[in-house]
Amino acid sequence: MRIRCEKDQLLSALQVVQKATATKTTLPILTGIYLSAEAGKLELQATDYEMGISIVIPVDVVESGKAVLSGKIFPDIIRKIPGKLIEISSSSNHSMINIAAEKAEFKVLSFPAEEFPTIKKFESTNQMVLKDDVLKEMIRKTVFACSTDESRPLFTGALLEMTDQELAMVATNTHRLAVKKLSLQIPGGTLKMIIPGKLLSEVAKVLNYEHPIDVCVYWLKNQVAFSFENIYIMSRIIEGQFPDYKKVIPHDFLAECSLAADVLYEAVERVSLLAKDGEYSIIKIRFNQSVIELSGNNPDAGSAMENLDAVFIGDPLEIAFNAKYLMDFLRVAGTNQIKFHLKSSLSPVMVEMSDDNSYTYILTPIRTN
Amino acid sequence: MRIRCEKDQLLSALQVVQKATATKTTLPILTGIYLSAEAGKLELQATDYEMGISIVIPVDVVESGKAVLSGKIFPDIIRKIPGKLIEISSSSNHSMINIAAEKAEFKVLSFPAEEFPTIKKFESTNQMVLKDDVLKEMIRKTVFACSTDESRPLFTGALLEMTDQELAMVATNTHRLAVKKLSLQIPGGTLKMIIPGKLLSEVAKVLNYEHPIDVCVYWLKNQVAFSFENIYIMSRIIEGQFPDYKKVIPHDFLAECSLAADVLYEAVERVSLLAKDGEYSIIKIRFNQSVIELSGNNPDAGSAMENLDAVFIGDPLEIAFNAKYLMDFLRVAGTNQIKFHLKSSLSPVMVEMSDDNSYTYILTPIRTN
Repeated sequence: MRIRCEKDQLLSALQVVQKATATKTTLPILTGIYLSAEAGKLELQATDYEMGISIVIPVDVVESGKAVLSGKIFPDIIRKIPGKLIEISSSSNHSMINIAAEKAEFKVLSFPAEEFPTIKKFESTNQMVLKDDVLKEMIRKTVFACSTDESRPLFTGALLEMTDQELAMVATNTHRLAVKKLSLQIPGGTLKMIIPGKLLSEVAKVLNYEHPIDVCVYWLKNQVAFSFENIYIMSRIIEGQFPDYKKVIPHDFLAECSLAADVLYEAVERVSLLAKDGEYSIIKIRFNQSVIELSGNNPDAGSAMENLDAVFIGDPLEIAFNAKYLMDFLRVAGTNQIKFHLKSSLSPVMVEMSDDNSYTYILTPIRTN
Repeated sequence: MRIRCEKDQLLSALQVVQKATATKTTLPILTGIYLSAEAGKLELQATDYEMGISIVIPVDVVESGKAVLSGKIFPDIIRKIPGKLIEISSSSNHSMINIAAEKAEFKVLSFPAEEFPTIKKFESTNQMVLKDDVLKEMIRKTVFACSTDESRPLFTGALLEMTDQELAMVATNTHRLAVKKLSLQIPGGTLKMIIPGKLLSEVAKVLNYEHPIDVCVYWLKNQVAFSFENIYIMSRIIEGQFPDYKKVIPHDFLAECSLAADVLYEAVERVSLLAKDGEYSIIKIRFNQSVIELSGNNPDAGSAMENLDAVFIGDPLEIAFNAKYLMDFLRVAGTNQIKFHLKSSLSPVMVEMSDDNSYTYILTPIRTN
């Protein structure tokens, strides 16, 4: 292998593909990044057997070939190497790869390329095409609600559900639920799959283009892939039956309260300072006519209280929330107005953003004594 | 106690005084910040028994009094509290302190103020006055060379030595040594004291004024204090006999090499990526006529080599350095030209900055096989 490429382009590709390298593994080659150079193109791959990423960039291929380099040292070298042009070449026995730029030269050990479990890309007739900003927004508004508890894998993923003319992304950790819907212009058939939250977060991070692009989503029985521009990201699908989220969405509210998300966010953040109860920060909100009262209490440190102006319709009531779960939603809501829909102190609360009626967040109150 | 003060001023004071609060201690009150309000002034104090900091800020004192608040939660509250004006008041039994701004109100538990070991400020006739930028430069150019190994306390401090018309700050971890000297306009007597490196670093951080100020340094047999503007920082002095650093400074060099510090820094950083040998990165520099060759080798990962243009006078020789020790100096040297003074592969090396002939850095080579 002998290639010449631009430093910035290679570095961008490495930063994406690096996300799929394994960090804790008994199989060292999975910590590496696979390179395959042929016909003016360099393909970079990494996989931890859960997720796989492939990127293709244009390079000057003097001699085609393959190599697997450390997923840690290789990107570090490219980040710090001088100049703009890099030459990467293999030694005659292929065990050492030479990386050179200006007057700097690195020789890096290569894993045996033939032992790398290359990604088996698939393109299926099960597919849909989404605009990058639409997909990114669906992910951003839901994926934070996933569980991080690996002992309940079902909830570490988000449900992607298609029913005829509607697409929904749904995430829950059973204490809160986020649903973002999208009307489809043409009927898209039916689909239900649970996509790992970690994968969706990575896809959203990579979708950072300055121009609009199409994202093609393919799926098989147990795999899903996102393909866009020069990037292909695939992952297993989480097995199991996602609970019927529609049953969880409450109705028949008795009160509602509107205020600015950022104002509430800052107040919750402050009151949380004195609202620790073990691992959680529990804040109480008392909804009254024209004002809401936030309060927190930590027997070892003190208490906090803050009043905010708000528009409230209904009978006053007090509800205790996990502060983090409320703040997660408020962060997504940014500077928008939000509306709480309330029934009683212990009934699930629905929160919506004024500028998006296809987005719903359900929050289960905390029982306090 | 009841005071009204400006949020920004209180927050700045808290950020300084917080540095002296104890984090690991069996005496919980040392984790707190002591407040004493009287006659238009609020004094804030913290101490971990090693270091003590006091700051006085102007406030509106409605009712004088004292309190000790959590060194963690109190600054967090002030950082996040809304508005510009804050009112702090104690409850009738003094166990709770009320912090209020706009519509937010916090009640924070207070430690018993009478139990706080307040700082005994001293002003001694043993004193000298230094300009802030001069002191800051002396610290910045030496303190990084201190040891962090608490089992050898002597080397965790920097020597401040005055001999008639010269002041010197000296730091070493026995593998490298930094000396910064200052000519005094008037003879200042003699002095030798070892000041904890941690204290000097904090003093340098706080010396961030936009206008020139005088720093008064006081000392007693076992204590040192820095007093400037509204701040008083004191500490114990490290006991023991600092080695005679003048004996360590080599002479009779046989070669010298000049180049730009920043160019060398970046090259050392790169080559270090493949120069790990256990805990250290060891880089070799081969000094030749008009070019120096940096190289590093990590048997598990690969090797690196880089050439740099340099002005060299003498016979070629190769020296191995701890990369970190070299980079620490190069970081301080910034974009200046530096000059290596060399004798042999295993003799200590002297490095100097072209724009400061009162600053010397000695580096012991590493013996490699």
